[in-house]
Amino acid sequence: MSDRQLSLAAILSATGSHIAGWRHPDCPADGGYNIRRYIEAAQIAEAAKFDLCFLADNYALKLASNEELSRTSNSIALLEPMTALSAMAMMTNDIGLVATMSTTYCEPFHVARMMASLDHISGGRAGWNLVTSANPAEALNFNRDAQDDHAMRYARGGEFVDVVRKLWDSWDDGALIADKESGRYFQPDGVAAIHHKGEHFSVRGPLNEARSPQGHPVIFQAGSSGAGIALAARSADCVFTQQRGIPGAKEFYATIKAAVADAGRDPDQVRVLPGMVPFVAETESEAQAKFDALQALVDPRVGLQILTAVLGGNVDLSIYDIDAPVPEIPETEGMKTFQANLLAEARDEGLSLRELYLRYAAGFGHWRVIGSATQVADVIEEAFHENAADGFAISSAMLPGSLGDFARLVVPELQRRGLFRTEYQGNTLRDRLGLNRPARIDPAAA
Amino acid sequence: MSDRQLSLAAILSATGSHIAGWRHPDCPADGGYNIRRYIEAAQIAEAAKFDLCFLADNYALKLASNEELSRTSNSIALLEPMTALSAMAMMTNDIGLVATMSTTYCEPFHVARMMASLDHISGGRAGWNLVTSANPAEALNFNRDAQDDHAMRYARGGEFVDVVRKLWDSWDDGALIADKESGRYFQPDGVAAIHHKGEHFSVRGPLNEARSPQGHPVIFQAGSSGAGIALAARSADCVFTQQRGIPGAKEFYATIKAAVADAGRDPDQVRVLPGMVPFVAETESEAQAKFDALQALVDPRVGLQILTAVLGGNVDLSIYDIDAPVPEIPETEGMKTFQANLLAEARDEGLSLRELYLRYAAGFGHWRVIGSATQVADVIEEAFHENAADGFAISSAMLPGSLGDFARLVVPELQRRGLFRTEYQGNTLRDRLGLNRPARIDPAAA
Repeated sequence: MSDRQLSLAAILSATGSHIAGWRHPDCPADGGYNIRRYIEAAQIAEAAKFDLCFLADNYALKLASNEELSRTSNSIALLEPMTALSAMAMMTNDIGLVATMSTTYCEPFHVARMMASLDHISGGRAGWNLVTSANPAEALNFNRDAQDDHAMRYARGGEFVDVVRKLWDSWDDGALIADKESGRYFQPDGVAAIHHKGEHFSVRGPLNEARSPQGHPVIFQAGSSGAGIALAARSADCVFTQQRGIPGAKEFYATIKAAVADAGRDPDQVRVLPGMVPFVAETESEAQAKFDALQALVDPRVGLQILTAVLGGNVDLSIYDIDAPVPEIPETEGMKTFQANLLAEARDEGLSLRELYLRYAAGFGHWRVIGSATQVADVIEEAFHENAADGFAISSAMLPGSLGDFARLVVPELQRRGLFRTEYQGNTLRDRLGLNRPARIDPAAA
Repeated sequence: MSDRQLSLAAILSATGSHIAGWRHPDCPADGGYNIRRYIEAAQIAEAAKFDLCFLADNYALKLASNEELSRTSNSIALLEPMTALSAMAMMTNDIGLVATMSTTYCEPFHVARMMASLDHISGGRAGWNLVTSANPAEALNFNRDAQDDHAMRYARGGEFVDVVRKLWDSWDDGALIADKESGRYFQPDGVAAIHHKGEHFSVRGPLNEARSPQGHPVIFQAGSSGAGIALAARSADCVFTQQRGIPGAKEFYATIKAAVADAGRDPDQVRVLPGMVPFVAETESEAQAKFDALQALVDPRVGLQILTAVLGGNVDLSIYDIDAPVPEIPETEGMKTFQANLLAEARDEGLSLRELYLRYAAGFGHWRVIGSATQVADVIEEAFHENAADGFAISSAMLPGSLGDFARLVVPELQRRGLFRTEYQGNTLRDRLGLNRPARIDPAAA
């Protein structure tokens, strides 16, 4: 473990992850669909020696009225990740490029092919964030009346990744020889059909794509359910996770590493990257001011939407004064113990509805850190040394500003402490992450 | 028709379309999977003011032994078109970027999304070559035992393109306003679900992508069957076709334009582009020498494979002397009148098996032209003025060399004659092709 390296991933969510980030004066209005914005953010991350940048994705607007949806930017209209990252590959040299694609709504042949193609295009910098898709609206865009249940999605996801891996192994390294003299374009014994027949997929193969620089592009996964951890344990190279502090992150880290070992794999070959939403400036008070500035941009209608969703969706909060203490709210069908406790705590602390929704507006579910470079680096260093994280997935509240702050202030501090690289080593995303290149399992011999 | 413009498309088939192109000393060995080769070819075409470059695609190696497949490069291992063209978009400024995607093995939501994303990335240069997929091996990579029949594939294809168009219309131009002051990210009445329910697809929409610069990326189609022509007539902006001379091309051109008019559309708004495989040099004899040099690289085993396929696949030609006159070949199950006549003609002309297969090795099915720049330009001019073509899809025998020859020799001759642009006009691929930007049909009003 002595050569364990800290990893940093830049989550590029177009306008930023804060619900009101897009309203900040410094946030470009075309951040969602102008490839130049994506490239600018990737170049900031690359100059700071981040391991990778990452694009989330899904395949539908949420099932809500346009009136409600129209006041937020998140997941509304983003460039499709494979096209965006292929473009970004041309404008960067070293940073990893990780795309989200769904095992529920895609086909393994297409995913294997496109990821191999991106890996060729980028010179070995491709990664796939495997998601099983949780937004019920997505099913309605793919010929279904409702989404498959959680267990079914994970069963399909598990077989899906197996098929993708087999397809990546259908070509041997160097099988494409293009030997003009002998007239052999590829070596016949270096290419094999996979003849996969399973519960969910029947795929003959081989892939119509030469083996890519990494052999297998790096596989990322999030998902903290039992099924999610089981899938990550046997299939993921990197695990994203939502944590809110060292104790929970340590517990999750230990759980994942143990599950990986139980699955017969080397725990050091699976990297755990909690998300973090950092607000950083020269001083803590300036960082707090940056945070407050974004919080002040949260439209109360959006704030109440968030709170309504947190409370289970069956409550009309618009009838209350948002700046008065949280009122007694009638219990509804959707309201579970968690929500009832939340309201009780808010009343105990004397919070208003506004104060309560603001707690959820900024990086809800993520690890939020507000402070100077030293303070943010302290959290990262402690998490790394305490085995709570192998690194962090930095979710910028506002792009490109928050990412620029982190790159300018926190990265040099991490480098000064000897925690983070000052130059890229190796060539591929696997090299950055300290992951071995997988040996090929010849489908013809399997 | 007075402002009718000649169009040129560059078919970028990695190593070139001649069966032995990859063996030419000037053909880079990594032409299939090195994005720099694709970019170089696109830049040659852009410098010559081509309308567009085009990537064919399919999703399987052919069902044949590796021993047999391994001596050809065509469709063996190519970069996936959407990723490749997105990268190429960053390294070009003006040329159109047309990707093949299948209506049989893809989903309309993904195709609509990715094409819209490429259109954003490229500033309005995206096009979709709609194919229904004819290689039976592809079905085996997508959970099927056999491919759907021709009628079913075209029925699905027709509904598929309707869904894609509706999704492209699900956002109005300028609906994404990102108005920081009012807090509106998009205009609620500018986005609408499509609620498509048909025989083959059920898609709610809207797309999670802002309307792209062209509104609708340009739709290309090939396919000369009745079903193919019917689909093109109601859905295509550009039609690729395999022709071998002016008379057949004129007939096809008239058929398509009439079918377009019958479908209630403006025939001038559908462009017909026959394929052409040009061999061009300073003189006709040098052009012939270039052709001969490639022909000499055809491995006899590959030549016999091609001839076997032409003859229906059920004949073993390896037992004959390839340089003796074509022998009496026993008639087999797969051999139809066409094949019997072919063999009879070859015997009448005294051709050897080698001479016969060489007729098929170079751009089989395409319009082959060997000559000086003047001679090639004469064919193009005549075809254009005789209403046999609105332009040509130039299939380079060997890349990048043959494309470079055409760009260096034929394009200036076409420009000298006033047939072809010397500067790009407008900004989008639609502008290049003289195609109107489609008005949006609001799904909420439809």
